[in-house]
Amino acid sequence: MKKHSLVFPGIFKTEAGGELKDITLSYHTAGTFSAKSKVVWICHALTANSDPEEWWPGMAGANCIYNDEDYFLICANILGSCYGTTGPLSINPETGKPYYRNFPNITVRDMVKAHDMLRRKLGINRIHTVIGSSIGGFQALEMTLLLPDVVERMILLASGCRVTPWATAFNEAQRMAVYADPSYFADIPEGGIEGMKAARATALLSYRSYEGYNSTQAEEETNVMFADRAASYERYQGLKLANRFNAYSYVVISKAFDSHNAGRFRGGTAKALASIKAKTLIVGISNDMLFRPEEQQYMQQHISEARYVEIYSTFGHDGFLLESEQLTRHIAEFYLNHTKSHIK
Amino acid sequence: MKKHSLVFPGIFKTEAGGELKDITLSYHTAGTFSAKSKVVWICHALTANSDPEEWWPGMAGANCIYNDEDYFLICANILGSCYGTTGPLSINPETGKPYYRNFPNITVRDMVKAHDMLRRKLGINRIHTVIGSSIGGFQALEMTLLLPDVVERMILLASGCRVTPWATAFNEAQRMAVYADPSYFADIPEGGIEGMKAARATALLSYRSYEGYNSTQAEEETNVMFADRAASYERYQGLKLANRFNAYSYVVISKAFDSHNAGRFRGGTAKALASIKAKTLIVGISNDMLFRPEEQQYMQQHISEARYVEIYSTFGHDGFLLESEQLTRHIAEFYLNHTKSHIK
Repeated sequence: MKKHSLVFPGIFKTEAGGELKDITLSYHTAGTFSAKSKVVWICHALTANSDPEEWWPGMAGANCIYNDEDYFLICANILGSCYGTTGPLSINPETGKPYYRNFPNITVRDMVKAHDMLRRKLGINRIHTVIGSSIGGFQALEMTLLLPDVVERMILLASGCRVTPWATAFNEAQRMAVYADPSYFADIPEGGIEGMKAARATALLSYRSYEGYNSTQAEEETNVMFADRAASYERYQGLKLANRFNAYSYVVISKAFDSHNAGRFRGGTAKALASIKAKTLIVGISNDMLFRPEEQQYMQQHISEARYVEIYSTFGHDGFLLESEQLTRHIAEFYLNHTKSHIK
Repeated sequence: MKKHSLVFPGIFKTEAGGELKDITLSYHTAGTFSAKSKVVWICHALTANSDPEEWWPGMAGANCIYNDEDYFLICANILGSCYGTTGPLSINPETGKPYYRNFPNITVRDMVKAHDMLRRKLGINRIHTVIGSSIGGFQALEMTLLLPDVVERMILLASGCRVTPWATAFNEAQRMAVYADPSYFADIPEGGIEGMKAARATALLSYRSYEGYNSTQAEEETNVMFADRAASYERYQGLKLANRFNAYSYVVISKAFDSHNAGRFRGGTAKALASIKAKTLIVGISNDMLFRPEEQQYMQQHISEARYVEIYSTFGHDGFLLESEQLTRHIAEFYLNHTKSHIK
């Protein structure tokens, strides 16, 4: 996919009353856009970037269901992230210095509002499919609610219509780990990085499963004194994120996760979901620790044309990234047949 | 219950090759000990103390199944803790200063070996029941294996025979949070305390359940911008532990958790469990996130006289602390009828 960047001069007002000046949106596209294009808008999850070919192997790219011959693909990096779109490490034009902790709190709606500015700028008036997993699903849902006459189909994978107390508790445990690292309060690029490593280690538990850890991280030696293999995996995953992300973006996006509520100022989630006209596919993962199947089923029950499919993945929640074969099959079936049904 | 303390002069050698000089064991008893006493040895969990009347309401004390008329009750604070038994904040007689990070790594077997010194000192030759939950169950199992001719009955609640990679990953994420707080490395009483708060917030997720958080920590306002109720609960629980524990003990005990393997140098768990002659009751909690029912069932299958019962608790793993009515009923039934059976 090709990388692009656009600056949007002026003030971006956040839902919580903050302001950002002259935001930049970084995005990737594949294919040539025309009025006849079938546009697929891909929303990325928490710490991913705008290149789905990189983080969604088997789903986006040549020979995948989402390829540049059948579709015009677009994915934009979310506000608050660190892959080109304005975030806490971007220079604040007012001060000439990075925002760090002065970056305003943003919501999922802010992310989508920013992406809608990009959509209008590119002249995209119809979206064939908006698709997202996890917090990407939050965005897809918000985009569908914001643009009822633009979005024709919505696909939500391992997601929900409102953050649960369970997920918020996971998010807070992670933020507490960042705040426990005092370098976070120094407002330096590497600030809070040890805390973020610990945060990621906790997050990973919610992304994976009991079965997954036990089948891949079992000790090889019967008489080992202190089990360390799974611990070493946790440290490795913390380090891996530290090499590509920063703690300020992590906290901003984690707070945005906790903002998700499709029913806010729309009379509650049931009413908001009932207003959706887009043909919808909801995919749940049976052993998802973070977004349980009941959350998926709730959405299916309230959206008028929604199909629900449940898959199993040893990976748990992370199955949305890894079960490309199952996902491809269910998405292809959805495109062939839109009738409301619940498959399990 | 009455609090006691005993010093054991000499060198205590740890399983991993460390040494502790003149250890103190702090313990509580209820009832009067005689050769005819029915001794119930209660093993406490991770951050608890030696007073079950305090942390096990409805289970230990007057009018409870474990009362001082029917039984002689004893519970000793575990090695590495901070409730009177020697731990990282105790004075190292070699240096005249607290151990802090120099406290040796200890295993569950070390904890039990220390408690066995106490048992011999008190002249207890028969234990009617050893009972423990979570890491308390680890100790109960080790005590039964260490003292086959002393322990008559064993009751394990929400526990396991070997730490799983899943639990080790949870433990490591917590230790990473402590290490992210550089004050831990200063070796001061309050060192690492912010990290420990975050660690506790992560631990709590494994002690509770999806259903529990969602039913008790839901936001009260539909239009709230950033969900915070469950987050505030996480902070509160972190603070609560910080007011009664320290990060050095937390890390030592967390490592000891990762040492648990009933099969170490006993030819594996299956062989170790098969050697047990004590009449056994195993209680699993169906939605326990930390110790899944399959771990309980594995133990039941390998112990010759073991009964397995599964209960449900909205609290998840913490049900072992809170479901006194269900636990009392199943323990009473076990005492009446020892036949091997699996009830669900």
